[in-house]
Amino acid sequence: MAPFAHHVFVCGNRREEGHPRGSCDPTGAEALHKAFKQTLADRGLNRRIRANRSGCLDQCEHGPTVVVYPDAVWYGGVTLGDVAEIVDSHLAGGVPVARLRLADECVNAAACPHKPRPAATA
Amino acid sequence: MAPFAHHVFVCGNRREEGHPRGSCDPTGAEALHKAFKQTLADRGLNRRIRANRSGCLDQCEHGPTVVVYPDAVWYGGVTLGDVAEIVDSHLAGGVPVARLRLADECVNAAACPHKPRPAATA
Repeated sequence: MAPFAHHVFVCGNRREEGHPRGSCDPTGAEALHKAFKQTLADRGLNRRIRANRSGCLDQCEHGPTVVVYPDAVWYGGVTLGDVAEIVDSHLAGGVPVARLRLADECVNAAACPHKPRPAATA
Repeated sequence: MAPFAHHVFVCGNRREEGHPRGSCDPTGAEALHKAFKQTLADRGLNRRIRANRSGCLDQCEHGPTVVVYPDAVWYGGVTLGDVAEIVDSHLAGGVPVARLRLADECVNAAACPHKPRPAATA
């Protein structure tokens, strides 16, 4: 049996404000990572499922980005309000959260319908 | 096809000098992570294989620690001199480097033959 049933990497990359590629963690507070850790602990799942902060996952246009291994399921646009659903449906229940999944053709792609990220309107 | 053939996470955790659990990156220079990135780029493999810095992987007694997904292969005690072998044998060639692998019973274990880490001799 693999040491972790799931290993969740939460992008903690932070760029300067206004950078065209954006930031997965604009304040550097690691709130999303902490929410995964806390939710896993609350459910008693933190021995078999680990949430890790990671450096830039390089899918910035889809951020905040989270990847779950060994499943290789990528999520984009993840908010604090999505964490419980990812934990309960996917990590505990085995059913990835379809509405948050990034399409394979959007991950590690030179171009996709979301890349480059649209310019923010003032 | 998954977006990355392999996704390598290199622990970049840094603790204060003398901490009993040690540090995977005692100087914070990210030298090991950078070596993976450079070696992958040198081999032309960096589009399909990504090396990421990660936060603490919590296998500190075996550090510096590296985990390769989706394979879920864990390496411990990785030095700069090991990077080319991991890239060429495992990531390019599909054959993990046996001498550096952590046993499943050592990863995410409350206790193992290496935990706690032996005290450093002065």
